[in-house]
Amino acid sequence: MNKEKEKAITALKTSKGQIEGIIKMIEDGRYCIDVSNQIVAASALLKKANMLILKQHLNHCVKEAFLNNNGEEKVDEIIELLSRISSK
Amino acid sequence: MNKEKEKAITALKTSKGQIEGIIKMIEDGRYCIDVSNQIVAASALLKKANMLILKQHLNHCVKEAFLNNNGEEKVDEIIELLSRISSK
Amino acid sequence: MNKEKEKAITALKTSKGQIEGIIKMIEDGRYCIDVSNQIVAASALLKKANMLILKQHLNHCVKEAFLNNNGEEKVDEIIELLSRISSK
Amino acid sequence: MNKEKEKAITALKTSKGQIEGIIKMIEDGRYCIDVSNQIVAASALLKKANMLILKQHLNHCVKEAFLNNNGEEKVDEIIELLSRISSK
Repeated sequence: MNKEKEKAITALKTSKGQIEGIIKMIEDGRYCIDVSNQIVAASALLKKANMLILKQHLNHCVKEAFLNNNGEEKVDEIIELLSRISSK
Repeated sequence: MNKEKEKAITALKTSKGQIEGIIKMIEDGRYCIDVSNQIVAASALLKKANMLILKQHLNHCVKEAFLNNNGEEKVDEIIELLSRISSK
Repeated sequence: MNKEKEKAITALKTSKGQIEGIIKMIEDGRYCIDVSNQIVAASALLKKANMLILKQHLNHCVKEAFLNNNGEEKVDEIIELLSRISSK
Repeated sequence: MNKEKEKAITALKTSKGQIEGIIKMIEDGRYCIDVSNQIVAASALLKKANMLILKQHLNHCVKEAFLNNNGEEKVDEIIELLSRISSK
């Protein structure tokens, strides 16, 4: 597994742990704005994981595809994904 | 616990389950774009949870504060949070 | 016109000026990443304007509605808007 | 100028026109939520323009760089940009 994937897994695991904490915060009746701020932090980790996955995708799969002269399809796939990312 | 908090917990638990699935997808070497799309889906659930928390915060804490004539501080708190949400 | 609305108009006018500059950058064949970074900057100003509009909406219309015991409808309206904001 | 750049300019011009309309809406004292919804629409057009710029950047500059075996720097540049996009 490459370095980016390892880092992505770390970010995902941390995010998962934060979500468990957030559920407990709600159950304990903690202040809403504190809960919301934690949700924002967990979201930021998911974004980070996604950027790492995308980075190694570009450097491996997309590079390979360009060298084999069929990169355009890969680019379409990425743009479609990004349109959804920047809209979540 | 009010209805919005219950729904928020459900969304958070689903998101947590998805993240566990995503970690496994990466470990299994699944295609990057499929991994990314799942991360986007998990993020969307966190956003949903956050909107539910915010909704009941407005309808309870903020309403209460306005009736006691000290709502402006609550509004500042929300705007600060939203500036961070819409920027994650 | 209140202070927030004035600041929002200033942000919108600056954003408009930036967009004019971006169109010229593309016509002049400037480097794509520089163009993209300018688009991100113009977007950030729109977000800022939106937060200012929302702030004074909460402090005036929504406050008024809570005092007249019909705030829930206003809150639904805001949550619907925010679901769209945080998804653009 | 390629097709994506032309479409990006169209989106930017439409967005600029919308912003002019939004400024007028605020000056005319129009309802805040209507103003906010228009700001969201103008933002969506900026995002669209950015995706078009990025698409042709990948299909031209980045492809070229990979063929010349120096694509990694381009990828870093894109990831840095995207981290900012998905955070505005």
